[in-house]
Amino acid sequence: MMLPLLDKTRPLARQIYTGIRERILSGSLPPGMRMTSTRDMARQWGVSRTIVINAFEQLSAEGFVEARRGSGSYVAAGASWGGAAQRSRKGRSDAVDLAPPPTPPRGCGAFRTDRVDFRSGLPDLTRFPVATWQKLSRQVWSVLTPMDLSYGQPEGNRELREQICRLVGTKRGVRCHPDQVLVTAGTTQAVGIVTRLLIAPDRSSCILEDPITNDIVRIVENAGGTIEPVPVDDQGIRTDALPRGARPAMIYITPSHQFPTGATLPIQRRVSILQYARSHATYVVEDDYDSEFRFDAPPISSLQGLEPSCVIYIGTFSKTLFPSLRIGFVILPPALVARGRELKWFSDLHNSSPDQLVLARFIADGHFARYVHLMGKVYARRRAALVGALDRAFGSGVRVLGSPAGIHLCARFAGVRFTRSVVEAIDRAGVVVYPAEAHAIRKGRFTDTLLFGYGMLDIPRIEEGIVLLGRAFARLNAR
Amino acid sequence: MMLPLLDKTRPLARQIYTGIRERILSGSLPPGMRMTSTRDMARQWGVSRTIVINAFEQLSAEGFVEARRGSGSYVAAGASWGGAAQRSRKGRSDAVDLAPPPTPPRGCGAFRTDRVDFRSGLPDLTRFPVATWQKLSRQVWSVLTPMDLSYGQPEGNRELREQICRLVGTKRGVRCHPDQVLVTAGTTQAVGIVTRLLIAPDRSSCILEDPITNDIVRIVENAGGTIEPVPVDDQGIRTDALPRGARPAMIYITPSHQFPTGATLPIQRRVSILQYARSHATYVVEDDYDSEFRFDAPPISSLQGLEPSCVIYIGTFSKTLFPSLRIGFVILPPALVARGRELKWFSDLHNSSPDQLVLARFIADGHFARYVHLMGKVYARRRAALVGALDRAFGSGVRVLGSPAGIHLCARFAGVRFTRSVVEAIDRAGVVVYPAEAHAIRKGRFTDTLLFGYGMLDIPRIEEGIVLLGRAFARLNAR
Repeated sequence: MMLPLLDKTRPLARQIYTGIRERILSGSLPPGMRMTSTRDMARQWGVSRTIVINAFEQLSAEGFVEARRGSGSYVAAGASWGGAAQRSRKGRSDAVDLAPPPTPPRGCGAFRTDRVDFRSGLPDLTRFPVATWQKLSRQVWSVLTPMDLSYGQPEGNRELREQICRLVGTKRGVRCHPDQVLVTAGTTQAVGIVTRLLIAPDRSSCILEDPITNDIVRIVENAGGTIEPVPVDDQGIRTDALPRGARPAMIYITPSHQFPTGATLPIQRRVSILQYARSHATYVVEDDYDSEFRFDAPPISSLQGLEPSCVIYIGTFSKTLFPSLRIGFVILPPALVARGRELKWFSDLHNSSPDQLVLARFIADGHFARYVHLMGKVYARRRAALVGALDRAFGSGVRVLGSPAGIHLCARFAGVRFTRSVVEAIDRAGVVVYPAEAHAIRKGRFTDTLLFGYGMLDIPRIEEGIVLLGRAFARLNAR
Repeated sequence: MMLPLLDKTRPLARQIYTGIRERILSGSLPPGMRMTSTRDMARQWGVSRTIVINAFEQLSAEGFVEARRGSGSYVAAGASWGGAAQRSRKGRSDAVDLAPPPTPPRGCGAFRTDRVDFRSGLPDLTRFPVATWQKLSRQVWSVLTPMDLSYGQPEGNRELREQICRLVGTKRGVRCHPDQVLVTAGTTQAVGIVTRLLIAPDRSSCILEDPITNDIVRIVENAGGTIEPVPVDDQGIRTDALPRGARPAMIYITPSHQFPTGATLPIQRRVSILQYARSHATYVVEDDYDSEFRFDAPPISSLQGLEPSCVIYIGTFSKTLFPSLRIGFVILPPALVARGRELKWFSDLHNSSPDQLVLARFIADGHFARYVHLMGKVYARRRAALVGALDRAFGSGVRVLGSPAGIHLCARFAGVRFTRSVVEAIDRAGVVVYPAEAHAIRKGRFTDTLLFGYGMLDIPRIEEGIVLLGRAFARLNAR
C-alpha cells in the first residue's frame, strides 16, 4: 500500500486516517482488501503503533474498515464513491466565490468618520454607561442559577416583561399585562412575527406609510404581504387616503414620530385610523421606535392606550440603549398572545437569558430612566444646533419637517434635486447625506428632502457638516 | 366642567391630562367648547398652575385642544369616538384571558428536582465555568468600541466566525471558509433559515429521519414543507428507503448521533445519501447537535467534509455551553451564502454582538476545548453508570440503542408499552421518563423505548432513578 507523506507539524493519527480514508473513498484501496497490520504500518511510517491504532479506530468507527476476528482489518464494501461521481467532490470549500451580501437597511454598515456622516438610526454610542452595564452583568451572573442557563420561555424573562410593562405603561400610556409582552430580537424580529401573525394567503394587503423605512417594506414582502402605500403629509399618514372597501391584514404606522418625515399623528387622525381598523376588522401596528425622545412636550401618548384590543405595539432598546443588544418587544392583544409566542419559539426559541436579566435590572434600578433623560437633553441640544445651522446656511431655502423629537430630522431644500451625482458631490465636500426619496415607495415627492441623523454627532461636528454642505451647494450652483 | 378626582400618590399632571382626555374622547366635552383657564382650573383642583399647564401642553401636543390667540383653549374637532364605537374601547387589557402557551419542544420547560428527571437535551448546567465567562465578558466590554454597540453584520462577528471555522475544521473535518459561516440564534433559527432557503412552493417535500425531534417537524411544516419520513434503524437513516423519483427540497439528518435513537450513520450510508443528494440535485442538512461528545473513539467525521458543496452543516453551543446563550451556526455552501445572510437579516438583523465577542474569546483562549474535554469525561462516566444500572435492574429485559456518545441514550424494554398511564405510574414512583414514541412520525415502532437524558444528573441520581424505575416496573407487573 502506498503511504501518504506525513507532515510532522500536524496530528499524525489524523493524517493517517485522512490518507487511508481518501484512498478507500476513491476506490484505490478496493473493498475486501486486507489492510497491512498496524504493527507493520507503524514500522513503515516510523511512528508509534498507538498512533496507527488511533487512526484505525476512527476508520473502524466510521465504517471504512472492518475487523475480522483473528485475521486483521479489511476495506469495507460500499465506502467508495464508485467511479464518475468523484469529480464533484472537490473544490468549492476553499475558493469561496461570494455574491455581494444583501444591502443592509436601517442604519447598518460602517459609520464614516472621515466625513461628517448624517446617517440616521444610530443613538450616541459613545455615551452608553458601559461601566454600569458591566456592574449589573456581574451582579446578574453572580446570582444566576443553572436553570437560568437552560432553555427559557419564548415570551421572555418574567422580570424583563414586568419592567417593560411598567415602562410603557408609565411613559407611553400603553395598557397591558406582562403576559402580553413578547420579548424579541429587536424591531426586525417583532415585525417579522407580526407579519406572520396577520398576513394570510387570502388577506395579504398591508397598509404602509409612504415614505417608510425600507426594511419594513422588505420584511412585509418577504412574509408574503402586498404593499398598499398611503401617503404621509406634515401630520403623518393621510387617513383620508386609506383605501375604502379593502380587507387589509394590517396598518403599519409610526404615529409618535413618523419615519422618516418626523410627523406626529394628531388625535383626530388617531381616532380615524382606529375607527377604520375597527370597521375593517384589522389591526394597527404601532412602531414606537424612538418616542422616548421628545423635546417640546412630554412624549406623545401611544395609540395602543386608546384602543388596546386592536393595536399591536412595538418598542425597541436599539435607539435608547444600543442596537447590537438586539432586544425589542411587542405588546400583543390577548387574542394574539399564544400564536405570537409560538412564532417566537419557531424563530429562535427565545432571547439570550443573561442579556434579558441584565436589561431588566438596568431598568429596575432606574438607570434606563436616567440615561434616557440625559440623552433626551443631549439630543434636544443637537437638534436645535442642527436647525440653527441649517437656518444660518440656507435661510428660507430650507424647511425643517416634523416634530422636535427623536434622533433624526428631515429638511426640504427649495429647488434642489438630490440625485446620485449631487449626493456624490456633497460626499466629496466631506459630508455624507441621505436623500429621503430613498424611503419613498411611490417616487417623486421627496426628491428635495434630506434625512439627517444627529444621534452620533456632537454639536461642533453637526455645525461643521452643515457649513460644508452649504459650501457644496454653492459650488453646485456655480456650475 | 366636572373635575376628575385626584389621587395624591400618582403624577397629578398625568391624572389631569387623562381625565380631560377621556372626557374629550367620550364626547362629554364637545368639540368647540371653551376650556376653563389654567389659572381657574389650578384653583379649583388646589394644585399649582404649572401642573395644569403641563397637562394642557400634552393635550395640545396631541391635538385634543387648540389654543386660539387671546381667547384661551378649545376642545378640538374630531377628537372623540363619536357614539357607538366607544363600547369596544374598554376592557381586554387588564383581565388577560390567555390561551395556554404552545407546548415547548426540545428540552424546554422546568427540569423537575422533586423527581429523578431524565429529560434529554440539557447539558450539565451546574458545571459551566461562570467565573471564566464573567472574566472574558469584562475583558470584552473593556475594549468594546462604540461601533461594536452599533448594528452589526447578519453573518455574525468576524472573530467568532473564524473561531467556529477553525473548531469545526479541526474537530469535525468540516471544510469551509469563515465567510460560509452564518451565526444564528441556536439550531432552531438555523433550521428556520435553512427551510426558507430550500423549500419552494413547487418543491416542498422534506425527507426527515423517523423518529426525530418534534420541533424540527414543526419548523419544517411552519415553513410550508411537507414531511417525507424515512425510518431509522440501528445504523441511522435507512438509505434503501429513500423515496425514488422524488424531488426533495432537502434531506435532514443527524448522522453523528441520531436523535433520539443514538445511531451513528456508517460510511456506506453516508456515501449513499450523498449520491442520492447529487442525483436528485438536493441538499443534505447535517444537524450535528451533540457530536462533540463521543466516548469510544474520536468524534465521527462530518458528512459535510465528504461533500461540502451539497451539505449544509448545523452546529450549536446549546449542548456544549448552555442553551440560554442562544448561539448556534450554519455552514452554507457558497451558492447559498448571500440568501442565507439575507434571511438572517430579516429574522433579527444579527445576534447580540457582545455575546458573540465573549464566545469568540472563550473559544480562542482554549476554554471551549478544555470544557468540552472535561465534560466528555463526565458524560462518559454517567452514560456508563446508566448502562450499568439498567443492566443491573433489567438484565436481558433491556437493550441500549445507539453509540456511546452525547448526553442521552435510548433503551428498549422487552414487552413494555409506555402508555400515558404507565408513564404516570412511573412518575408517581419518583422518576420522570420520556417515551421515544413521542418523537415518532409514523407511530408504533418505539412504543417499548425510553429516552434518557443524563446531562443534568450525577451518577448517584442516575442510579437512584433506575432503581426507582425497576421498582415501578415490579409494581406494574404485580398488578
